[in-house]
Amino acid sequence: MKLVRYGERGREKPGLIDQEGTLRDLSGEVEDITGATLSPESLGHLAGLDASDLPFVNGEPRFGPPVGRIGKFMCIGLNYADHAAETGLDLPEHPILFMKANSAINGPNDDVVLPRGSRRSDWEVELGVVIGSPAKYVSETDALSHVAGYCVVNDVSERRFQGRLSGQWTKGKSCDTFGPVGPWLVTADEIPDPQNLSLRCAVNGRTMQDGSTRTMVFTIARIIAHLSELFTLHPGDIIATGTPPGVGMGMKPEPVYLKPGDVMELEVEGLGRQRQIVRMDE
Amino acid sequence: MKLVRYGERGREKPGLIDQEGTLRDLSGEVEDITGATLSPESLGHLAGLDASDLPFVNGEPRFGPPVGRIGKFMCIGLNYADHAAETGLDLPEHPILFMKANSAINGPNDDVVLPRGSRRSDWEVELGVVIGSPAKYVSETDALSHVAGYCVVNDVSERRFQGRLSGQWTKGKSCDTFGPVGPWLVTADEIPDPQNLSLRCAVNGRTMQDGSTRTMVFTIARIIAHLSELFTLHPGDIIATGTPPGVGMGMKPEPVYLKPGDVMELEVEGLGRQRQIVRMDE
Repeated sequence: MKLVRYGERGREKPGLIDQEGTLRDLSGEVEDITGATLSPESLGHLAGLDASDLPFVNGEPRFGPPVGRIGKFMCIGLNYADHAAETGLDLPEHPILFMKANSAINGPNDDVVLPRGSRRSDWEVELGVVIGSPAKYVSETDALSHVAGYCVVNDVSERRFQGRLSGQWTKGKSCDTFGPVGPWLVTADEIPDPQNLSLRCAVNGRTMQDGSTRTMVFTIARIIAHLSELFTLHPGDIIATGTPPGVGMGMKPEPVYLKPGDVMELEVEGLGRQRQIVRMDE
Repeated sequence: MKLVRYGERGREKPGLIDQEGTLRDLSGEVEDITGATLSPESLGHLAGLDASDLPFVNGEPRFGPPVGRIGKFMCIGLNYADHAAETGLDLPEHPILFMKANSAINGPNDDVVLPRGSRRSDWEVELGVVIGSPAKYVSETDALSHVAGYCVVNDVSERRFQGRLSGQWTKGKSCDTFGPVGPWLVTADEIPDPQNLSLRCAVNGRTMQDGSTRTMVFTIARIIAHLSELFTLHPGDIIATGTPPGVGMGMKPEPVYLKPGDVMELEVEGLGRQRQIVRMDE
């Protein structure tokens, strides 16, 4: 099942994409797609619907993030060995966690707005994992049973804010619009092996990142188990699981960063595509 | 004005503490105390009420965090020169920002529950700043006009999770129950000089921290101005502004950490008291 939220920012309605790729309205079934909608029971109810009974949505509305009221937006750093190498940093012993402010969350095709003073903003295509049931002290074996589904995340990052403003990466990760999520939340039953998905990011039509979730340092199950030792993962929480190589800061002979007018296109196998135009804040 | 949220966890009602210190119900005026309630207009409306017209609340209900649906819970690290010295870390050039997961937020007198494996959990009394109107690219001069009010925060910290699990402090700061906030949100008009408030934390009756917001490295206005260059501060966001010296990790001849049965009592001048019993997660 491909769940979406569509319409004006802050007033998105729930919907689903049917087998033919048509957007249908779920407003008659659920108020919104949030943590409460993502429980196994609620997803079971939605999966039991006959999509052809749901109303068509006319036109081509904007997509919002496919989950509303995201609780915490967790990101894992340096989770691809080849990406860690390009940053010049050592491989971590445990998954590196940082938080992205919820105020950074954006629709998958909304403009990415560089904050004033940004000269080193960068792309990061990532597999996003959406939690469906509370997870605390879970084993790796049990971890994936807590996943409602998967989505594309662009973990947009201002490298100077991230590294040169007295530490803690969250500064460079939390700028407004720096968290495009979606277009779809694809339920876990449709992704039999999340550790074998290709990820791709192109900037102005040129492929910059082209990787696979096969090369993650810490698997999704390991990440969930580790985080659940620290705190409860709640339904509607999102984990962005790290980015493969090919970010702008790793480019040779010198780094390449985003500038106004650039177009980012991101895709994770089976999870749909994002497209963002970059502009500078006025 | 002293605003509160009282009642069962997750079902708190809005209230205020009147001049006599009596809890009165605000349910007839606002649905909840959230970002929307904290705008200058909304606070102006509440300030115009005659508290003696509001219903008494009987008994001694639990207090929840005085702000519901907190957007982002930002924390500033090493913001007291004398605390930085006790940690052995250099003074930062800019305010150090990390995020505390919203799932850590707790009522001011709820138990603090140490996660399994915690052996180095520590207290940190802090002045919490609650945003009342959106702030983006604001000057230091204008910054405090975006503050709705102030509250006590205990930035409970697991030092091993914070420092020994591959970096980024958020891991040690985000454990469930590690964010007691409250009891009151005291509106800014009642705190003429937030840079001259005493802060105190006692553990089992022994004073461990006894400082003043006078010794902050970065003032509240400077912190708000700096953060607003990175992203928008939204109504209902909270900034915990750092802790004075006297944390457990800085104790001589050796560190002292929290253990089950310990009692933490925290106070910031004019903002009320917190009291938490520590227990270990089962």
